Amino acid sequence: METPYRLHYAPDNASLVIRLALDEMGLPYETALVDRTRNAQDGAAYRALNPNGLIPVLETPQGPIFETAAILLWLADTHAQMAPAPDSPDRAAFLKWLFFASNTLHSDLRILFYAEKYIAPAQAETLRAGIRPRLRQHLTRLDALAQEAPDWFSADHPSVLTFYVACMMRWMALYPAKADRSWYQLADTPYLQKILMQLEPHPSTRAAIAAEGLGVTPFTSPTYANPPEGSAT
Amino acid sequence: METPYRLHYAPDNASLVIRLALDEMGLPYETALVDRTRNAQDGAAYRALNPNGLIPVLETPQGPIFETAAILLWLADTHAQMAPAPDSPDRAAFLKWLFFASNTLHSDLRILFYAEKYIAPAQAETLRAGIRPRLRQHLTRLDALAQEAPDWFSADHPSVLTFYVACMMRWMALYPAKADRSWYQLADTPYLQKILMQLEPHPSTRAAIAAEGLGVTPFTSPTYANPPEGSAT
Repeated sequence: METPYRLHYAPDNASLVIRLALDEMGLPYETALVDRTRNAQDGAAYRALNPNGLIPVLETPQGPIFETAAILLWLADTHAQMAPAPDSPDRAAFLKWLFFASNTLHSDLRILFYAEKYIAPAQAETLRAGIRPRLRQHLTRLDALAQEAPDWFSADHPSVLTFYVACMMRWMALYPAKADRSWYQLADTPYLQKILMQLEPHPSTRAAIAAEGLGVTPFTSPTYANPPEGSAT
Repeated sequence: METPYRLHYAPDNASLVIRLALDEMGLPYETALVDRTRNAQDGAAYRALNPNGLIPVLETPQGPIFETAAILLWLADTHAQMAPAPDSPDRAAFLKWLFFASNTLHSDLRILFYAEKYIAPAQAETLRAGIRPRLRQHLTRLDALAQEAPDWFSADHPSVLTFYVACMMRWMALYPAKADRSWYQLADTPYLQKILMQLEPHPSTRAAIAAEGLGVTPFTSPTYANPPEGSAT
């Protein structure tokens, strides 16, 4: 049988979240490296999969899906794993925080990482300075959610949202490499910290560490990726 | 019977999309005005519904939902209307564009409208200047999607996404009131223009016009809201 899924990925890019979800669900998949050193994500072949030229894309029997959170939600619903089902009484709460993670936390992260796509280079650092307090506030909200510990945002039953937030916290600790990162302190969000610690021994996390060279503690004490193939930036 | 839904709204705010979806689905609901002139969205009562202090909130039997796109998706799935069902072969494509609308188009719009929340006031206009070409690009992508005319992004079978995009285009034409808006020309996106024209006679659009004072052509040739109660800004 052919594998139904093909993940277009770059090491330690947003595709990492999809890899973790696929492994956690026990789904077979192929990977296709997007060579960022050659800007393959801007090439015609990749743009045919995602006109926005962003990583990841997951090829599925329903065609290529892009947008990290869309892929996560579709996988969770299709395989009835890692998210409250559409008819669950927890669905509304899950969806509001999934969209928050995508359109507020992840969107602001993109500004931090790629400020030059939003403003002239001379003002990029000023924009980053404005984004950091926003990110801290978003994390405070998510820490309060982690303290409430709904089933779908806990380490005991990690959902696609749990892994999504864990990866974003990893990236905040590491990127951009040359900018101030002292604003991010995992200990400021103790309930999230606890979740991240409990995710690290998961077999899916260990598989991602091996596949993308993420080091021993990729969420709680991350180091730059040293991947067997490809480049994180 | 009590109404199961209570929409916390301000005229011509993101709550407009939810009002349109509720009316289009024929669902009864109450409204509660959020008084923006008194910053009610920042008050303790409202923050108990949405800790982020953003409009809208929809109170439901599953508790209060925030995030516009989360509310839209939850309503569509709960009432099996205005979106491909979770088991539909169109679900993946629908989700990827719904998340794109939320975390790329809507997120960038928020920067345009509230640039001062991202950067010092002296640089706000520079940030807006960087956002406009991004918005034009996003609209170009959505116009290509409108040309493909999948069932769930057409005027014949408007989905929650169709109304969501229509409202965002309305706001681009109007806000921020004192900034350059010449960059937005509806004629640049002819397939979207056609959808917007066809949405205007819908009974749900007419109801929203009356409720929020949106004028005769709220999508194709919008004017500032003149609402019977509350303030748009």
